[in-house]
Amino acid sequence: MALLKTKGLIVGVVGATGMVGRELLSLLERRRFPVAELLPFSSGLRRTKVRFKGRLLAVHSADRSSLERCDAIFFVSSDAVSASLAPGLARRGIWCLDDSSAFRPAPDVPLVIPEINASSLSPDRRLVAGPNCTVTGLAVAGYPLHRLAGVRRVRLASYQAVSGAGKAALDEFLVQARALASSLKLGDGPAPIPVNKKARFLPAPIACNVIPQVGAFDSFGRSSEESKISSELNKLWGADVSVSATTVRVPVVRGHSLAVWLEFERPLSPSRARRLLAKAPGVSLFDSGYPTPLQAGGKDGVFVGRLRQGVDSRELCLWIVSDNLLKGAALNSIQTAEELLRRGWLSPRGFSV
Amino acid sequence: MALLKTKGLIVGVVGATGMVGRELLSLLERRRFPVAELLPFSSGLRRTKVRFKGRLLAVHSADRSSLERCDAIFFVSSDAVSASLAPGLARRGIWCLDDSSAFRPAPDVPLVIPEINASSLSPDRRLVAGPNCTVTGLAVAGYPLHRLAGVRRVRLASYQAVSGAGKAALDEFLVQARALASSLKLGDGPAPIPVNKKARFLPAPIACNVIPQVGAFDSFGRSSEESKISSELNKLWGADVSVSATTVRVPVVRGHSLAVWLEFERPLSPSRARRLLAKAPGVSLFDSGYPTPLQAGGKDGVFVGRLRQGVDSRELCLWIVSDNLLKGAALNSIQTAEELLRRGWLSPRGFSV
Repeated sequence: MALLKTKGLIVGVVGATGMVGRELLSLLERRRFPVAELLPFSSGLRRTKVRFKGRLLAVHSADRSSLERCDAIFFVSSDAVSASLAPGLARRGIWCLDDSSAFRPAPDVPLVIPEINASSLSPDRRLVAGPNCTVTGLAVAGYPLHRLAGVRRVRLASYQAVSGAGKAALDEFLVQARALASSLKLGDGPAPIPVNKKARFLPAPIACNVIPQVGAFDSFGRSSEESKISSELNKLWGADVSVSATTVRVPVVRGHSLAVWLEFERPLSPSRARRLLAKAPGVSLFDSGYPTPLQAGGKDGVFVGRLRQGVDSRELCLWIVSDNLLKGAALNSIQTAEELLRRGWLSPRGFSV
Repeated sequence: MALLKTKGLIVGVVGATGMVGRELLSLLERRRFPVAELLPFSSGLRRTKVRFKGRLLAVHSADRSSLERCDAIFFVSSDAVSASLAPGLARRGIWCLDDSSAFRPAPDVPLVIPEINASSLSPDRRLVAGPNCTVTGLAVAGYPLHRLAGVRRVRLASYQAVSGAGKAALDEFLVQARALASSLKLGDGPAPIPVNKKARFLPAPIACNVIPQVGAFDSFGRSSEESKISSELNKLWGADVSVSATTVRVPVVRGHSLAVWLEFERPLSPSRARRLLAKAPGVSLFDSGYPTPLQAGGKDGVFVGRLRQGVDSRELCLWIVSDNLLKGAALNSIQTAEELLRRGWLSPRGFSV
């Protein structure tokens, strides 16, 4: 027991070989998360080992007896995998930090960004959801402004990286990009593009294109991604804000960017907002200039630039960039687990196997 | 004279070797514009011949005596070239169809999109400006809706093609795209990108990136492109609409896309708007689905999709794509000239040299 405590926790990662899973392992190392033993799980069997702290660990399929050894499990796999495994494990006292969308709307599951609503954590609710990668930047950067001046309405256009659609989509993009790069000639000017028209993992070719569809459309013409932004923002903020989003996939590898209009109850000047954001947790403010996904990709923060007045004195315009795999996914889950550690709610459960 | 009339007009193109110039020559052919003689001019001397109707024509520097032979001149060069040449030629009765931004704000110069305000044309104002390539799609698609329900406010996020920044920027993009394509490996996942960081013609590398800057910023943090959208939309519509835009360059070769929120004086349902747009001149409406720049690039229309309600019943959300070199530039100028032909205001001036 004493040994276990000093050595740390038994940590499971379900989806360890995926893109977010790899970031998660690297973050656990980098942030010195107290891991005594790491148990990597994967549904796919393409890659059977992962590297952690210099060692190669075998990846296993997620069987119940191994999972039940864990003190905390990060779920960075599919909705279906989370839905089938997490509730039972959480009932047994295992902290389940779920990055899927399966439980985000559930009233009894806290949806947490520690900078915003760590207060919604409770030792009795061991299944904790992390938000969608697109809403995260908006939620973090907008929250201090919302607290001061009350956001009434949000309009948002996104510029979402292909990695948000998974590894297969990313490889599809690279194949298209190569075909393009070899066929276009300097000096040709804007000749018609002989892009490989095949798209299997995204709704259209993405190289040299932008696609205003992320997820399926409902009967109102709203995509599932756009619905998530609205419902998750309101759950995170504990608010009732009207959100209209147009989410768009762009040929970027990592880093989601957002052009955002925040309409407030009360006037809020850009200079006042700038002072607030300069000290806001998790936010890196560009006083002049702006972040781009190429700069922000691979970095931890939520980057904000181009802060200025919108259509009138009650509206602000912002440009927000955050890494969809880090703060948008793996990092946020780890920060939530770190908050549980600080509160003493996550600790070795005291049995070794 | 009679011969000249049947044979058509003497048409000058200033900037004939540029990207818009090349589109313009091809459109004059494709639309059977009545050209008796084409005089291609260029300030640069890199390319000394252009192809028109199967013949190679020598390109000359824009000297006054050659220019003064023309019945109509298309200016698709720089603001400086238009500013120095067009007013004098227009005073001599030569129709000057200017695609630069030099005269767009001038009260005595009509800023024309024929579908919207052909009525502002007059035989006495022979210098006619065409709008910025980004505002065009918004102006054309929004106009019928504005007429019915009165647009009060516009929010807009753009996804602008690199060709809008000129040939050098486009070549810069291709060099970066090739370097990327050869360095990224399939299955690598979202590894840090070893992009060539050099950017000379755009403010940042554009391959695998998006850049929220088109033009220089003013003291309010608004880019020159964003200011143009606001002032030109109001001049085109004869309106006083509050516009807040975030303009963004994306790694697309041609085709500007816009995520637009139109806030109206009066409620306007998506279905009513759809009926209006289905018959609106110059607009191609997607009943379901959406256009992308890869589809719309090289095509004439203004393509509209994802029409739906915004934050409430007085707001509509649209996705608009149009080719920045065609309807955004060359095509619009030619359509204006065609309107002048229909009205009998543009005709051979009756002297041959």
